Amino acid sequence: MQKPIEEANQAALSHMYNAEPVLVDVAPASEVMPQLGEGMLLHAGPPVQWPAMCSPMQGAVAGALRYQGWAGTEEEAAALASSGSVTLQSAHDFSAVGPMTGIFSPSMPVFVVENRTLGNQAYCTINEGLGKVMRFGANDDSVIERLRWIEKTLAPALREAVLRAGGVELRPIMAQALAMGDEMHQRNVAATSLFFRAIAPHLVRGSSQQASLSEVTDFLVGNDQFFLNLAMAAAKSAMDAAASINGSTLITAMSRNGTNFGIRIGALGNRWFTAPSLMPDGLYFPGFTSDDANPDMGDSAILETLGLGAFAMAGSPAVVGFVGAGTYRDALNYTQEMGEITLGHHPHLSIPNLDYQGVPSGIDLRKVVETGISPAINTGIAHKEAGAGQVGAGIARAPLECFHQALEALVNEMESR
Amino acid sequence: MQKPIEEANQAALSHMYNAEPVLVDVAPASEVMPQLGEGMLLHAGPPVQWPAMCSPMQGAVAGALRYQGWAGTEEEAAALASSGSVTLQSAHDFSAVGPMTGIFSPSMPVFVVENRTLGNQAYCTINEGLGKVMRFGANDDSVIERLRWIEKTLAPALREAVLRAGGVELRPIMAQALAMGDEMHQRNVAATSLFFRAIAPHLVRGSSQQASLSEVTDFLVGNDQFFLNLAMAAAKSAMDAAASINGSTLITAMSRNGTNFGIRIGALGNRWFTAPSLMPDGLYFPGFTSDDANPDMGDSAILETLGLGAFAMAGSPAVVGFVGAGTYRDALNYTQEMGEITLGHHPHLSIPNLDYQGVPSGIDLRKVVETGISPAINTGIAHKEAGAGQVGAGIARAPLECFHQALEALVNEMESR
Repeated sequence: MQKPIEEANQAALSHMYNAEPVLVDVAPASEVMPQLGEGMLLHAGPPVQWPAMCSPMQGAVAGALRYQGWAGTEEEAAALASSGSVTLQSAHDFSAVGPMTGIFSPSMPVFVVENRTLGNQAYCTINEGLGKVMRFGANDDSVIERLRWIEKTLAPALREAVLRAGGVELRPIMAQALAMGDEMHQRNVAATSLFFRAIAPHLVRGSSQQASLSEVTDFLVGNDQFFLNLAMAAAKSAMDAAASINGSTLITAMSRNGTNFGIRIGALGNRWFTAPSLMPDGLYFPGFTSDDANPDMGDSAILETLGLGAFAMAGSPAVVGFVGAGTYRDALNYTQEMGEITLGHHPHLSIPNLDYQGVPSGIDLRKVVETGISPAINTGIAHKEAGAGQVGAGIARAPLECFHQALEALVNEMESR
Repeated sequence: MQKPIEEANQAALSHMYNAEPVLVDVAPASEVMPQLGEGMLLHAGPPVQWPAMCSPMQGAVAGALRYQGWAGTEEEAAALASSGSVTLQSAHDFSAVGPMTGIFSPSMPVFVVENRTLGNQAYCTINEGLGKVMRFGANDDSVIERLRWIEKTLAPALREAVLRAGGVELRPIMAQALAMGDEMHQRNVAATSLFFRAIAPHLVRGSSQQASLSEVTDFLVGNDQFFLNLAMAAAKSAMDAAASINGSTLITAMSRNGTNFGIRIGALGNRWFTAPSLMPDGLYFPGFTSDDANPDMGDSAILETLGLGAFAMAGSPAVVGFVGAGTYRDALNYTQEMGEITLGHHPHLSIPNLDYQGVPSGIDLRKVVETGISPAINTGIAHKEAGAGQVGAGIARAPLECFHQALEALVNEMESR
């Protein structure tokens, strides 16, 4: 049985490495995901229903129901959600990924990223900025108002600019940003700056009134993490391309809903293997401690699945301090350690200070189980109570139990053939 | 005599390290340098007159005379310059620095950078972009036309934006860009992107018509080296602050006119110590070889004087290939070697992958002579014939002879006291 797995893995790696993600549109979620209709929301991580959701994810759901106008107050929203009449589904099943709580509602605009190599698309919401934001479980009026501004002002301006540009190729930006110290999970300052340079000439040619061009410009330059959501959609488009190859032991998704952590492997399609999310080990903003933290959450681990984030730490010494991971030496160690569980090095995403070696890319289920090395993930940390927002950043580990389950299922599957 | 030198060096370093360069205006050269009037040009490097100028510098002078309207054709320009009726002076004597040929004429707009700590100002022209440009000795109609567009369209838009912004602090941009892999001499992609992000909100609020906003945006995003000239003015403002301290053995300027290399030291004010410019060791663009190269040229070595460029190579692995310097290991070696001849490490310009050690900064005349280690300089390479432009990039060394002369002069000066 060994040979077919190796062949499948090589084919999957080839699809993953050759993906050419291009931002082709910025569209309402319901336009590109027509199944996402009235009374339905998507969330980060493996499937989870309201009662089992962590508090920040419940907060984000309640906020999204108000944003959609399906509920007037937070109480109404909570009642509606707990009544079971809101359909809650995993974003991953819609080729979509969202950071932290990862909530999608029909009216939210999304980035539409197309993998030009295979033609598959992936979606991500638009980054809301820092502070009290829905992805960290905040849901007050300021959060809703910002989402409406994103929908009414930012997204139309970006859509016009992206279409005028004929699309924006993301892989060159990601490759260059990695060479400029971004690992693209907790550090996106280079990628955001390069993306802004790429889109600005098309934005200023837009039909926007000067006032809205000013607002849009302020928003884009004001958030170093703006590119995160684009990197996530790009990574999802590459991983979905690899997931279309059956039989492989490649990890095609890692994700967390704030309660459970889930993984998928190539050989077993859309099946999730889950275990309770672990607590990140991190640095907290002033006034907060690990007692305030929610367990690991969000679809953004799709970046580590591709080989970015904690896997690319050696190329991002500046992120080391932010996530509390120690020194440059520790950053090198993370990248080296992740190389023990990957099938290769990404040929287009390389690290200059490792003499342009590619990031370790393509997690092999077998290697994780064999070595006992669990994938590391650079992550933001949400307050465990809805409404408070981000309290820090750190490094989480994937629970090994998911990998043991997946290997057992794979063995059963192979025996039953 | 040892103690006064140490004290002077510490005072000079303190002025140099504490400089806070801020872009406060973009103004016609003649407005901020009123001595730069009719019939006068400034050039890079120590003083040189027309007959001794290298061909690309002569080409740039001829182009500047046409740009000013003082000559109609290249022949008229050459005749005018060789007649001796054009006053040619070293830009350094006007607190100004220009890359490569470094020509300033009265109508050219300049960046006005103020060192907020001491109040002194420094000036640099606006980067023209790549290809056939005056700084590399090109002077055809396309060069003149671009300079006119810079004067009439770009500079007024930038001036308005800079004034609206209340100035743009350059040190934070430089510190962040260094952490993003720029050494700010041959690589400025991060600094340029960060500067564009900083200025864009003020540009889009400008009174410019949409057509000119589009042109200005295209120009700014289209040239990764745009920030070079800002970094040079910032470095000059810091080095002039250090030069105001007498008695030190700090190298306060290194510069080249394409014929000779010159240095200044703190103890001997504006006196130049010169020797013939050496040939850079570099990589050539397709179709060119070292036979086409002009000797080392330009005021941009002010960056190495501050501790950037070749001194900061360890923080810029991506530049290593561009200047043909080998691998990441070689980059580390350059920074380490330059640390042998410097008085300290810059507290505000640090290298993440050296665990945030500052760049080696503040060249000590005594250490250069003692070790025989000559300052390395990352440099563009001009074609030796006027009109052709850039042919490559590489690393040049300062001729040790300048340092021997300066030490001798210093000893004579101390004996004569």
